[in-house]
Amino acid sequence: MLKLKKYSFKSASMKKLHLTAFVFLFMITGIMAQEKFGKGNITQIGLVVNDIEKASEKWAAILGFSEKPQIIITDEYEKANTQYEGQPTDARAKLAFFRLENLTIELIEPIGKNSTWYEHLEKHGEGFHHIAFSVTGMEKNISFLKDKGGKLVQEGDFTGGSYSYVNMPEVGVLIELLTSQ
Amino acid sequence: MLKLKKYSFKSASMKKLHLTAFVFLFMITGIMAQEKFGKGNITQIGLVVNDIEKASEKWAAILGFSEKPQIIITDEYEKANTQYEGQPTDARAKLAFFRLENLTIELIEPIGKNSTWYEHLEKHGEGFHHIAFSVTGMEKNISFLKDKGGKLVQEGDFTGGSYSYVNMPEVGVLIELLTSQ
Repeated sequence: MLKLKKYSFKSASMKKLHLTAFVFLFMITGIMAQEKFGKGNITQIGLVVNDIEKASEKWAAILGFSEKPQIIITDEYEKANTQYEGQPTDARAKLAFFRLENLTIELIEPIGKNSTWYEHLEKHGEGFHHIAFSVTGMEKNISFLKDKGGKLVQEGDFTGGSYSYVNMPEVGVLIELLTSQ
Repeated sequence: MLKLKKYSFKSASMKKLHLTAFVFLFMITGIMAQEKFGKGNITQIGLVVNDIEKASEKWAAILGFSEKPQIIITDEYEKANTQYEGQPTDARAKLAFFRLENLTIELIEPIGKNSTWYEHLEKHGEGFHHIAFSVTGMEKNISFLKDKGGKLVQEGDFTGGSYSYVNMPEVGVLIELLTSQ
């Protein structure tokens, strides 16, 4: 009987120890498996250009594409709900997508003036505009970037999804968030 | 006999037709299978930064990395043979690599002044510096880009390979070529 009691006591201690070890391991695993932003993938590099026809031709030659991609135009305000600096804007853009093996190069020619595309092109000339991450849940990802000094500069919809541009002045990069419906 | 001759004639015509069709298909396939630059992969996005310790911390928080990557320093001139604008340079850089799922973000803090890294940071501030393609054969790929308006601005070696930065003013982007030994 004494022996049995002793055994039970030991067993309870071991259970506690096991539970502590389990919780500890769970925490460590949680830290190790920290979720990567956009699942650790950059899906697009966005470039602003003066003339999308000419730029497409030059990029096709550099990248080794035998054909230029189709040029599309972003939707009008009624459909895209484009907001720039918190205000509705009629600005649009011509877009061309070079789909590479591991990500897409997006060329952007601004139409109209009230957009990050036009502002960036005016200020910096042709070249890098943003890197894009595909995310799940727009608002929580905007908040995540705002917590790191980000400022939402533009947002809108397109057939099948939405986008937001968040400027990250502390690292000098504009991040685009993409969600699909 | 006449019948046989007629048959042979037809067969020869058919053979010619088949050969023509084959050559035509071969040409079309050749055009379709045009080799993509860097096998269609962008391997790195390079960013210049003022302070690599601080920048690494900020990027780790944005990208969801629980640890900052190790910071390495490029080799001294004797080993790296760094050439900037065609002249030997003692300029070096501190580097940190965030290895994402589909490509790597490279942070670059210039050490010394005679380099594209320093010049770019002075002119444009922190942010996008280049996109990198891994290629086979440095000289032929530099020539390929020169044919498209490119200008070689810097080159050097590192343990296991070489790099060249080719400025592409016609598209407003700096391209890095990487080769491995």
